[in-house]
Amino acid sequence: MAGSSFGKIFKITTFGESHGYAIGGVIDGVPANISLNIKEIQYELDRRKPGQSKIVTERKESDLVKILSGIFEGKTTGTPIGFLVKNKDYDSNDYSYVKDSFRPSHADFTYEKKYGNRDYKGGGRSSARETVSRVVAGAIAKQILNHIGISIVAYVDQVGSIKLIDNINYNEIDQNNVRCPNAHIAKKMESLIKEVKKKGDTIGGSISCEIKNVPIGLGEPVFDKLHAELGKAMLSINAVKGFEYGSGFKCIEMYGSSHNDSIQSDGTTKTNNSGGIQGGISNGMPIKMRIAFKPVSSILQEQDSINKKGDKIKIINKGRHDSCVVPRAVPIVESMAAITILDFYLRNKTVKIQ
Amino acid sequence: MAGSSFGKIFKITTFGESHGYAIGGVIDGVPANISLNIKEIQYELDRRKPGQSKIVTERKESDLVKILSGIFEGKTTGTPIGFLVKNKDYDSNDYSYVKDSFRPSHADFTYEKKYGNRDYKGGGRSSARETVSRVVAGAIAKQILNHIGISIVAYVDQVGSIKLIDNINYNEIDQNNVRCPNAHIAKKMESLIKEVKKKGDTIGGSISCEIKNVPIGLGEPVFDKLHAELGKAMLSINAVKGFEYGSGFKCIEMYGSSHNDSIQSDGTTKTNNSGGIQGGISNGMPIKMRIAFKPVSSILQEQDSINKKGDKIKIINKGRHDSCVVPRAVPIVESMAAITILDFYLRNKTVKIQ
Amino acid sequence: MAGSSFGKIFKITTFGESHGYAIGGVIDGVPANISLNIKEIQYELDRRKPGQSKIVTERKESDLVKILSGIFEGKTTGTPIGFLVKNKDYDSNDYSYVKDSFRPSHADFTYEKKYGNRDYKGGGRSSARETVSRVVAGAIAKQILNHIGISIVAYVDQVGSIKLIDNINYNEIDQNNVRCPNAHIAKKMESLIKEVKKKGDTIGGSISCEIKNVPIGLGEPVFDKLHAELGKAMLSINAVKGFEYGSGFKCIEMYGSSHNDSIQSDGTTKTNNSGGIQGGISNGMPIKMRIAFKPVSSILQEQDSINKKGDKIKIINKGRHDSCVVPRAVPIVESMAAITILDFYLRNKTVKIQ
Amino acid sequence: MAGSSFGKIFKITTFGESHGYAIGGVIDGVPANISLNIKEIQYELDRRKPGQSKIVTERKESDLVKILSGIFEGKTTGTPIGFLVKNKDYDSNDYSYVKDSFRPSHADFTYEKKYGNRDYKGGGRSSARETVSRVVAGAIAKQILNHIGISIVAYVDQVGSIKLIDNINYNEIDQNNVRCPNAHIAKKMESLIKEVKKKGDTIGGSISCEIKNVPIGLGEPVFDKLHAELGKAMLSINAVKGFEYGSGFKCIEMYGSSHNDSIQSDGTTKTNNSGGIQGGISNGMPIKMRIAFKPVSSILQEQDSINKKGDKIKIINKGRHDSCVVPRAVPIVESMAAITILDFYLRNKTVKIQ
Repeated sequence: MAGSSFGKIFKITTFGESHGYAIGGVIDGVPANISLNIKEIQYELDRRKPGQSKIVTERKESDLVKILSGIFEGKTTGTPIGFLVKNKDYDSNDYSYVKDSFRPSHADFTYEKKYGNRDYKGGGRSSARETVSRVVAGAIAKQILNHIGISIVAYVDQVGSIKLIDNINYNEIDQNNVRCPNAHIAKKMESLIKEVKKKGDTIGGSISCEIKNVPIGLGEPVFDKLHAELGKAMLSINAVKGFEYGSGFKCIEMYGSSHNDSIQSDGTTKTNNSGGIQGGISNGMPIKMRIAFKPVSSILQEQDSINKKGDKIKIINKGRHDSCVVPRAVPIVESMAAITILDFYLRNKTVKIQ
Repeated sequence: MAGSSFGKIFKITTFGESHGYAIGGVIDGVPANISLNIKEIQYELDRRKPGQSKIVTERKESDLVKILSGIFEGKTTGTPIGFLVKNKDYDSNDYSYVKDSFRPSHADFTYEKKYGNRDYKGGGRSSARETVSRVVAGAIAKQILNHIGISIVAYVDQVGSIKLIDNINYNEIDQNNVRCPNAHIAKKMESLIKEVKKKGDTIGGSISCEIKNVPIGLGEPVFDKLHAELGKAMLSINAVKGFEYGSGFKCIEMYGSSHNDSIQSDGTTKTNNSGGIQGGISNGMPIKMRIAFKPVSSILQEQDSINKKGDKIKIINKGRHDSCVVPRAVPIVESMAAITILDFYLRNKTVKIQ
Repeated sequence: MAGSSFGKIFKITTFGESHGYAIGGVIDGVPANISLNIKEIQYELDRRKPGQSKIVTERKESDLVKILSGIFEGKTTGTPIGFLVKNKDYDSNDYSYVKDSFRPSHADFTYEKKYGNRDYKGGGRSSARETVSRVVAGAIAKQILNHIGISIVAYVDQVGSIKLIDNINYNEIDQNNVRCPNAHIAKKMESLIKEVKKKGDTIGGSISCEIKNVPIGLGEPVFDKLHAELGKAMLSINAVKGFEYGSGFKCIEMYGSSHNDSIQSDGTTKTNNSGGIQGGISNGMPIKMRIAFKPVSSILQEQDSINKKGDKIKIINKGRHDSCVVPRAVPIVESMAAITILDFYLRNKTVKIQ
Repeated sequence: MAGSSFGKIFKITTFGESHGYAIGGVIDGVPANISLNIKEIQYELDRRKPGQSKIVTERKESDLVKILSGIFEGKTTGTPIGFLVKNKDYDSNDYSYVKDSFRPSHADFTYEKKYGNRDYKGGGRSSARETVSRVVAGAIAKQILNHIGISIVAYVDQVGSIKLIDNINYNEIDQNNVRCPNAHIAKKMESLIKEVKKKGDTIGGSISCEIKNVPIGLGEPVFDKLHAELGKAMLSINAVKGFEYGSGFKCIEMYGSSHNDSIQSDGTTKTNNSGGIQGGISNGMPIKMRIAFKPVSSILQEQDSINKKGDKIKIINKGRHDSCVVPRAVPIVESMAAITILDFYLRNKTVKIQ
């Protein structure tokens, strides 16, 4: 039973391989009668696409979205939105070397074993190019959330050992190549990435995401707790290795007396160790989470591996790849957050009959 | 759209409030014709139950499971297994003080706002007592996985700032009150918990979980990646604030050249930063993950909060509560892991027609 | 992937074998904060239960429902309602003769082949006793629909060749043993059933169901059209062989010019060949459907069959059985209709964001 | 919660309006590593398309399918198959007359009321053009079922009052314009349709469908009985008003003693009133069902209706329409049957662990 769908009410189903004809998807359960701006969808795709700067991969993908259905005279009709983004910049010769070989820490080995064959070009379905469809759906979700007043922002808060501690300026996020909301730290991160790139190596990073103005009541215990589904949403993004919300892993060393968020007369809490979620349900405070991304597997250095026959081989990646995935992952994180929150917003509408 | 079900093929649906008549559930999609040992189910429930030692809550719950259907002459029939565990040790007077008030960092506030009313006794549906049903289902899943050769073990690896670094002895886990696989560290953790308890305070902790002998091929990209669903499973457990697998949050500071797991001629990898999962699919290496639990919200100290009317109040929890949740959470983590892995094992059977 | 759940938002999951400890289920997605009357649930169970009259089976089942969760101080809490009905009147000796044999047109053969074993007592899971859980869930759905103003009524309109043509008096339905809304026809039907019973034979029948006051807009094209899901709901009831709505099978011989329902200025239609549903969506007119039930398979006559080994045998049913299933199926039809309509009512709430 | 998906494991999600850019869909859960012949998909689309003969609508739609993903070097990869079929022959002026008006027995009224707006061109999403996507998915399912040995055939068995009684010649089906497996009856049906067409009227009809070589064991009680899901599949097709299987509605007048199918030593049954399904599970006998289609709503005669404002109007359909839908519905019925059977074939693989 395959897993190409996400969401229960606002539900995205995606398709497409890195080097096939197109990437795309269908969004079912789009609320009806809402104006959608196609340019804003394209804007988010442009934030995700390769070739934006010197520190991200130089492959050129125009990534133009084509909406196929579900919008009529500028408004959603409540019927499914089909969309596609054609794949342009590929060279099938690039990937002959992986046809019969498995790259370390890629999905070559597991796809081959699971399915019995695989589209080896550019990683096929396992390529991060798949996230194009998430960004289209996320951009649509964001616009709808906008109508409700909910806003989402993500940013890079760490690259390697360079951490953003404070002095967060949200306006700065899209002003630098790293998407770090602090120009000074951003510069340091950028230098590190360039340095790593020169060595043909890659480096990890992390992204913080905040969701503001979330109505109280989103989340469906006991299994579909809001943070549990947000966690799944984030962990489903390529290269993610960890997820935490609110106090996160720091909570391990904390005491209840300092961790508990005392409730104030307006219903807000004094602290927000809960990260905006209590008992799996949003409490109206900002939702805060953090996501860890591993260093990209496609390093330009020789590595030990095996081929299909099980012979030991030396393998070295070809092509252009990101040296650090987090700058381009920012809109993907936002997209998965938007899809999840909108889905739970709609789910919550069924809790009462009136 | 409520969220009381987990799993797609091996699917558990649970019900029950902390102080209602019973806790229970239905497991649909149980593979047919497999011998089940009811005593082993009870054994896991006993590992979860309160009152096992001085450091866990002293409430006495006998927690006897009653199987209602789906097993005939000792074997599963492929029809749903209904089960229940009666609630015994409750005192409704205990909870009158929360009837109209909201305890900090509990789910009182969010349940009240979401549903318009709530069963306030002992936290109602938001109580960790709900995990009884997970343990029943998990114990059944474990037995079935056993037939396939898959084994799961979880243990406490940190309480407050006391960390287990090495010298892991799996046989030690159930020999101490903390379920830490190192007697020396366990003793330290136990002391810390006792100390915290004396102050009426609580402390966080974390649990590691390992799954061995997982066949290659479990996991359903792109959204239902194996680690994404394991992450959701763990994050859905009460008090969990973070999830990581393989290298986890440490990957942020790592380089691709040292993070990549080179593949050896037998298909295993030299290192296991991937945590047994590549591209969302198990690669046959042990699956490793770690889960962060916050300090229990039910501290026995006075806190600031509000009542239903929005008046400021001072509130202090009553009753007996765990000072640290991780010792009793070990079987719950194992259960959610077992349910998830069995579900994906069954899902993977549909990938090919033969 | 098993099929013990029905509904997407108001979702019932059932368990239980005919002669196991209990029959029961869990209803997830029950709208919160609604008063429920347990006596009304019991009333519907009593309409379904055997032994109500001379023409239905004389087994005595007290069929008392026990609610285990999800209702607090008389109101739904939005958390799942677990319930069970204990099995009382069984005699395991009754069924030893089917242990290794397959009764014609029963599910003995198919269960054995599908699952590899089976609970052979009283048909196990394939017994119509399973519908007890449907009636509990249906009675709850009915009460909730009542709050919205939607009402459902079903009745027997044919037994063998005795047809109800006109003169329908809804008040008559529960006044006779057959549940036919015409005392005169009811008497004829009752005579026929008694006659058939004497011969140890059984006879088919059909039930009509009408749903009134359905809001415009229920139904989710293109696959979850309202009538498609109602059809599935009805076809999932034991012994059902056919489903039609509106003009039904008669439409085959009709012309568009007489079949089309012209629309009047108040939005109602002059005729109702559409049966209250157009394009899969309710149009506000009464929903009308008709369901065909086969003669019960458990005849008290000798039949040709085989045993597990494949040997030819003569088999004759034991025990007490209905000679015609439709009188007791009336509340089951109403229940499945109620569950479906409530589910679609809730689904429709997610079509718009306001 | 929208309803654009069908199937649980072999799952199709469709999109597209009649006069939008394209119709298409995504099939998730396609079994991996199976050769697919694109020409056979196109062949089925050609069977469905308008303009094949004088008796079906003369609109010209080339209906060329474009596969976007999921097939690599001629084989399925187990990843989702995205596909689209562009819409060619449309004239937006054709439909200005329905912009603000509701055609009787169409979905104009219900879509407008449900969603608040609608794509009025050619019926938008409610158009039978939507079934193009079903036929693509069905053609793929058929090819996969072929590998398992399962075959599906549907044919017209009634148009108006002209019934096919016997003398069925399967080879004849695609030899005549009506798709009736009896040349003589086919000719009569064709004459009737032509006659009806001349009057600007339409006529109903019915289709029989047989599925052969189905393995024993398909079907998932108690709700997802095989015939219940087949019923839903068929009822979800445009214009369907009724579904029956095996003895169908005739069972109402039958006695158990003649209706029961006695089991023979090879496990087959002497008669097949069960229609190949017992207790919701296939028993290895041919599955037989029959589906009733109403006369097309688009008659070329003046009808009474209202506009958006509620004013009474006279309305007359424009454009070219089928006078009887059944000839072109034959491949659609086969497709929905194929999708359903393949889905249940895959579901059944999860019943046992080995």
